[in-house]
Amino acid sequence: MSNSAAGSESLAARLDQLESRFAIIDLTTAYCHGFDNRDFDLFLSIWSEDCVWNIGPPFGSFSGHAGIREAVHDVLWPAWAESHHLSTNHLVEFQGVDDATCVCDVDCIGTLTSGPECQMVGATYSDRLQRRNGRWQIVQRDVTIHYFNAVAGTVLQAPAD
Amino acid sequence: MSNSAAGSESLAARLDQLESRFAIIDLTTAYCHGFDNRDFDLFLSIWSEDCVWNIGPPFGSFSGHAGIREAVHDVLWPAWAESHHLSTNHLVEFQGVDDATCVCDVDCIGTLTSGPECQMVGATYSDRLQRRNGRWQIVQRDVTIHYFNAVAGTVLQAPAD
Amino acid sequence: MSNSAAGSESLAARLDQLESRFAIIDLTTAYCHGFDNRDFDLFLSIWSEDCVWNIGPPFGSFSGHAGIREAVHDVLWPAWAESHHLSTNHLVEFQGVDDATCVCDVDCIGTLTSGPECQMVGATYSDRLQRRNGRWQIVQRDVTIHYFNAVAGTVLQAPAD
Repeated sequence: MSNSAAGSESLAARLDQLESRFAIIDLTTAYCHGFDNRDFDLFLSIWSEDCVWNIGPPFGSFSGHAGIREAVHDVLWPAWAESHHLSTNHLVEFQGVDDATCVCDVDCIGTLTSGPECQMVGATYSDRLQRRNGRWQIVQRDVTIHYFNAVAGTVLQAPAD
Repeated sequence: MSNSAAGSESLAARLDQLESRFAIIDLTTAYCHGFDNRDFDLFLSIWSEDCVWNIGPPFGSFSGHAGIREAVHDVLWPAWAESHHLSTNHLVEFQGVDDATCVCDVDCIGTLTSGPECQMVGATYSDRLQRRNGRWQIVQRDVTIHYFNAVAGTVLQAPAD
Repeated sequence: MSNSAAGSESLAARLDQLESRFAIIDLTTAYCHGFDNRDFDLFLSIWSEDCVWNIGPPFGSFSGHAGIREAVHDVLWPAWAESHHLSTNHLVEFQGVDDATCVCDVDCIGTLTSGPECQMVGATYSDRLQRRNGRWQIVQRDVTIHYFNAVAGTVLQAPAD
């Protein structure tokens, strides 16, 4: 192999990792957009078929696409009247070209169906990811909820049309 | 063309798209920094001359650089005593090398000139972007404000010098 | 040098800058994760040995690794019972291949050891960064705290196990 071809291959590997970083961050973006906009197809697309979603208390743990569907349709969407997730601080680390972990922090503002006050939630997502058939997916997400409580006396209001 | 030259061109196209992704995210960063720091030149630099900024209720819709100037100088800056935007969850999609869309979510904390209480705003920005003369710009931004209300009894305070 | 080798070198330089952008953003991610998780080794790893951390009022200015240790162990961790930083809006600019600046915005939610109410902090970090021995580090961080106050009547609560 000539030097320049070898150089191109090495560049291609580095480029692939950068693209993978964006693709991995995009998974959590799709999680936020999918969940908040109640776009279940988008939300489901980020999870591998053998995924595990450990939400922890008070929600529990869910497995596979059937588990994702149950968590979202039977537990979470019924509990939230509206939600607005913001994800930041993504730390992506690669264990191989098709294996990675990502830790990110999330803020969620919303309203529960059970009451009028605005809720504030702070959480950390610790993810294990794999690329299969050319597509990055979340294989396991462990959620740590740091706080989940009302903002006293505050009610979310959209501007009037 | 030799294989390695062809490989370089393909790598160059992928690299260009990664650079474009950062450039597109940077536009919303400049939007936040420019608006919050009252740096109008920075704020204006992100908009194409034929741009449309649909802020929606209660603010309205604005067109072109004259519209941006009016919205910012006559409507928004007079309304806000201070503002602090945080942008996240950027989903960038390319329709061509010079055409893209981006959806992101924004949280804004601030104080209106009309009253002392801290305001909290949650919004989604849906953008159409084009690269013209080598520079990415926002051609259209549609804003959906999810909530815009006071944080009850809370007043923003900076530390004393 | 052949054209394709020259092309590869130019691609390598652009790739290096993209990797540097991620590495620079990762420094603030490590700052947030390190500080909030009380992982001092992670927190310290982002600072150059000759660093300056101008936190400003009410905390002051700190220099070098000894200063970082003092600020964190003697001042900040004792003051916070818990903290949750979210960093966004990173504007990275390069002055050379090994020199950059970055401005980002940060939101922090937490509880002080001095009282029960949730605190909200909004700040901007203005950083000077250098790559030394192949590793990006923060040489100087100037913090501007826009607000730092309680969320009236609100107390952070984690879900019960």
